[in-house]
Order: sequence, then structure tokens, then C-alpha cells
Amino acid sequence: MRMEAKLISSAQNPLVKKVLQLKEKSRERKKTGLFVVEGQREIELAQKGGYTLQTLLFCPEIIGDISIESITKSLNPEVIQVSESVYGKIAHRGTTEGVLGLMLSKNHALENICFKNKTPLVLVAEAPEKPGNIGALLRTADAAAVDAVLIANPKSDLYSPNIIRSSVGCLFTNQIGVGTTDEIIAFLRTNQIKIYCAALTASKNYVECDFKAASALVMGTEATGLTENWLKNSDQNIIIPMQGEIDSMNVSVSAAILIFEAKRQRGF
Amino acid sequence: MRMEAKLISSAQNPLVKKVLQLKEKSRERKKTGLFVVEGQREIELAQKGGYTLQTLLFCPEIIGDISIESITKSLNPEVIQVSESVYGKIAHRGTTEGVLGLMLSKNHALENICFKNKTPLVLVAEAPEKPGNIGALLRTADAAAVDAVLIANPKSDLYSPNIIRSSVGCLFTNQIGVGTTDEIIAFLRTNQIKIYCAALTASKNYVECDFKAASALVMGTEATGLTENWLKNSDQNIIIPMQGEIDSMNVSVSAAILIFEAKRQRGF
Repeated sequence: MRMEAKLISSAQNPLVKKVLQLKEKSRERKKTGLFVVEGQREIELAQKGGYTLQTLLFCPEIIGDISIESITKSLNPEVIQVSESVYGKIAHRGTTEGVLGLMLSKNHALENICFKNKTPLVLVAEAPEKPGNIGALLRTADAAAVDAVLIANPKSDLYSPNIIRSSVGCLFTNQIGVGTTDEIIAFLRTNQIKIYCAALTASKNYVECDFKAASALVMGTEATGLTENWLKNSDQNIIIPMQGEIDSMNVSVSAAILIFEAKRQRGF
Repeated sequence: MRMEAKLISSAQNPLVKKVLQLKEKSRERKKTGLFVVEGQREIELAQKGGYTLQTLLFCPEIIGDISIESITKSLNPEVIQVSESVYGKIAHRGTTEGVLGLMLSKNHALENICFKNKTPLVLVAEAPEKPGNIGALLRTADAAAVDAVLIANPKSDLYSPNIIRSSVGCLFTNQIGVGTTDEIIAFLRTNQIKIYCAALTASKNYVECDFKAASALVMGTEATGLTENWLKNSDQNIIIPMQGEIDSMNVSVSAAILIFEAKRQRGF
């Protein structure tokens, strides 16, 4: 397959420009339904997670022992060779393994969420901002095997290169739903999932709550916390008691403390 | 005081060059024993944490209502005015509040560590790499009021601007010790503190451990974990059970899960 693949060696090629636009512009990703994934492991994880590989670009000089066939075998993507200079232009810091995929994004509508577990444990993040925080939340959610991650009023689309990178593939292993705060509250109510809102003003210590029933742990932003809408629809507002001078924890750290307390109560 | 302060308006001034060198070069910080702190809150936190403010630079056009006297009252630092263009050059993205301090660094030798608590809870990080992770560890350590944070075989000095920024002031509120792995192991033994090493290959679930006695929670790097030296000197290797597909948590997230389980057992 390698020998037959079309070769692109000009940075002016329309496909090269398209890749750069998909990496840089959320608008372009939305318009085309495509996003960019770099590296063999990530591309394989995305396919395993149900994403379709549309186009695979590879650089023979960098790719080494990786077999293109092993990455593409179950599907029939377009496969294109690129020169080293073109790859350097489209890859993040030129550090990835010489392989880059254009993948079709998924529909993250709440109605597609499916629970295998009768008492699901769900993580909700309202308007998370920093890609690094979203990545860390997804890593923790994967490690805890939470049943779904729901993102309320997202500030950016999930397929920004920084989120993909910081999630180290966990963007593809979690079941992710996206909606407005109203939609997610309605979804949780319909599914009889208790809403626990993390709030700095709450009085109930998280370790005193029983998370064994179907539970959603809802996190706001570090700067402003959760919106009023969440707090008034909460079944229980909870707090992690803090005893320091500054008492400022990273949102992904706070989420992990709550998630793993629930896991402890559930006997892992 | 404002009116009398010397004014610097040239980017070629030696002090301006010194500030830039202190921000960029660990070597320069070590040579002079000085580091740079931006913002009123951070400068005040550092002084409260026992750091001496040597020189205060402020930009009258930016500083607004902040009173220089309120920042410097308890000490007698050199106070210098800088022009807006000079401040833009020395401040991080020009976003801070128009005030920047040169502070004397502290001695983080282990013999200076002092425990007020008979059963201290200590966080140890071996060779942490990313400034953002060190900042998040310090934020969690502050919120949990751990008795000390010990850094073994540090990869960088604590006073890099990225660590200061990502710790949101928690660099100054924690008791921090720095040493080699051998020195820290000896220190923990001398102080009869049990060593719990987080290890992906460990068999004991962290929730089955009793952290009520004097305990050190020891974290390695995300890439390679702890060195052999720690593992062979461990009283108990512990693991956070993970059930995902990728099972990769951020080091500051893992540390927080362990620290807050210890806090739970100790009744906060």
C-alpha cells in the first residue's frame, strides 16, 4: 500500500492547508465534521472508540517500523504519503510518529448516552475552560471507569488538538455527552441520577454522602464555580473540607477526590 | 514614597536585565539567591511565608489603587518606579498588577523541616518535571494542610516563574524540603514516618492502608514511576485500582486521591 499511495511534497497542497485549518479552527472542524489525530496509538484508540478514520497521512522517513496496514486494516481510508517537510508543518512540534489521521467526529447528543450499569457514576463538568484540565478530567474518568462524562455549556469543542493531546487518548475511551446545563439536568432527572454539586459554600462533607446509588458529581470552573441553575437543581451540595491558607485546588484534582471516594464506597 | 522612588524608563537599565535573567535562568537565581514574584497577593503571601522582599518594582500607570506602603510596610526594601514599557517587558504577558518583587530564596534543607503535628502527613515527589504538576501538587498540599512537601532529586529549582504561577501562591504557604532520594529516605526514617510508595505494580489498595500514623505518600513521575531506591526502602507499596482502558492519571491527581484518603481516615 505504501508504494501506491499518492505523495504530497508541497506545503501549498490543498490537503495540507485543510489539515492546518482543522487543527487551528473549531469552525472548520464543525463545518466538515472532521478532526486531526496524531500518532499510531491515538489513531488506533480513536478507531476502537468508534471513530472513523477518513484519511491517513504518513511520512515514510519518520514512520519507522509502524505498519500502515495495521492502522488501517479494518477500514478503507484514503492513504497519502507526505514528505518530511510537509509532515513537519502539519505535526505538533514535529514530534509525533510520522502518522496523522483525519477522523470523523461523533455525535455527543445526550440521547446517545447508554448506561450498562444500573447505578451509574457520572462526572459532569460545567463550562470547563483549560484544555489541560479537560484532558486530566478525562484521564481520571477513564481510570475510574465512570459511566459517562457530561460537559455542560462547553467553551470549546472537544476536538481541539490541545484537548486530544492532554487526554492521552482518554477522549476516545470515555462515553462523552455534551449539552446545555438545562438539558443535562433534565437528562439526569429522567435517568434518576442524584445530582451532587461541588460548591465551596456547601455544608455537607463529601465523605458523609452515600454515592452508591446512581450519582452525578458536578464540577464548576475554578474561577466562578457552578452556576445558580445547577445549585438550585442539586440534590445535595457537597464540599471537600480544606484547611490550608489558600484552599485552591485544581478542578481535575477536586473531581478525582470525589470520584475515587465514590469508587471506594462502591468497593471499586 | 511613590514620589521619591527612583524611576527606570530604559529597557537597557542593568536592573531590568537582571530581572529578566532571574526569570529565565535557574543559574542566575542560584548565584544571587534571588527570584521574581509578580502581583500584590503573591508578594504578600511570600512575605507571610517568611521570604524577604529585597526590591519592589512598580509601575504607577498600572498599579491603580494598590498601596505600595501596604506591601512593603513591615520591611525596608528598595522601591523603584518603572515606566509602562519597562513593566511590559519584565512582567508575564504584561498581565500582572503593576507590581513585581525581587525576593530572597529560602534554604530548603531537610534539617530545617519542623513538625508541629506528632503524626505528620508528608507528601514526597521524586523528580517531578512539569511546572504545572508541581504547582497542582502544592495547591493540593496547601488545601489538605499536609505537614511538609519534600522534593527528591528535583529537576528544576522551585523558583521558576512557571512553578510560582501554577502554584497560585501555594509555593509560599507549604513547608517545603528538598534533598536527594537517599537524604529524604534517611530523614523519614529518623522521624519514624512510614513510607508509602505509589507503584503501578503494587498489590495493596490504598484504601486498605492505615494512614493515621505518621505517613509519607511518595509519588514518582508519570513516565517512569519511582526509582528502585524508593521501592526497596518502602514500608508499603500502594496502588490506586484503575479500571479504564488507558489507566493514566496525572501525578497531581493521584497524589490528591491518596492525600484525601489519609485526611478522611484522620477525620479531617
